[in-house]
Amino acid sequence: MFTSMPIAYARTPYQATSEIPKGCGAKHDAEGVLEILPEFEAGLLGIEGFSHLYVIWEFDKSGDYDLVAHPPTDSSRPHGVFATRSPRRPNPIALTVVELIRRDSAKLHVKGVDMLDGTPILDIKPYLSSIPEEKLRRGWLAEAEARNRAVR
Amino acid sequence: MFTSMPIAYARTPYQATSEIPKGCGAKHDAEGVLEILPEFEAGLLGIEGFSHLYVIWEFDKSGDYDLVAHPPTDSSRPHGVFATRSPRRPNPIALTVVELIRRDSAKLHVKGVDMLDGTPILDIKPYLSSIPEEKLRRGWLAEAEARNRAVR
Repeated sequence: MFTSMPIAYARTPYQATSEIPKGCGAKHDAEGVLEILPEFEAGLLGIEGFSHLYVIWEFDKSGDYDLVAHPPTDSSRPHGVFATRSPRRPNPIALTVVELIRRDSAKLHVKGVDMLDGTPILDIKPYLSSIPEEKLRRGWLAEAEARNRAVR
Repeated sequence: MFTSMPIAYARTPYQATSEIPKGCGAKHDAEGVLEILPEFEAGLLGIEGFSHLYVIWEFDKSGDYDLVAHPPTDSSRPHGVFATRSPRRPNPIALTVVELIRRDSAKLHVKGVDMLDGTPILDIKPYLSSIPEEKLRRGWLAEAEARNRAVR
């Protein structure tokens, strides 16, 4: 067993999970603030040079887990939890890529938050590279998106 | 405090951290296997449809942390730990994007491993999108790369 602790808390517009956009075509352009705890502020040195950040956080409201999930994007068939972003995971760890708008001392103003207000943040890392679009296959999600587009 | 447990272990060519390519221009094309524990295998359903995966793992050999790091890519000045991928982090959690070559039951054959052989894996998620190259700023790393290119 490993342990981790909050290094920051997220301030976001979302008070309930039902308010967070989900599923096909969900836009994550909500703005929020990552409030780094004072004892970790020195760790932000130079972070303002990066346009995008990985935010690793805890699904702290998630209880148990399911190995097979039914994501809202594709209710037609089940998917293994590791092929989804479901919060009900063996280790309830989440990952979000955000755009860094500006740093204000220990506060990182970011765009693209999709976590509840008050969520504990475990780590922040620079986002360094992209997989070229033509090399990316997106499994069941691409199929579900195509199906949903056809229905509209 | 939050706890997490291994859901898999990595089999990689690396027995010592000194063998893992680091710094500017490091190529991460080593192949390895993520061996999912039997009790979590059902969670892989449908994962073979994705070309790339996020692997979240534990720097289990990392001891204490430094808030300011001197990454091998840029020894000219210090960088806050959250602006680097240093293993000496408040929460020693690592993130690697790998290419999924094939699935063989509970074994995921992947390319791009950069962790030690035997490393505990905490989570696997589908890699779903890329930030377009023209929107990406890579802070001190881009500067260090340009400097290193000029020296060569």
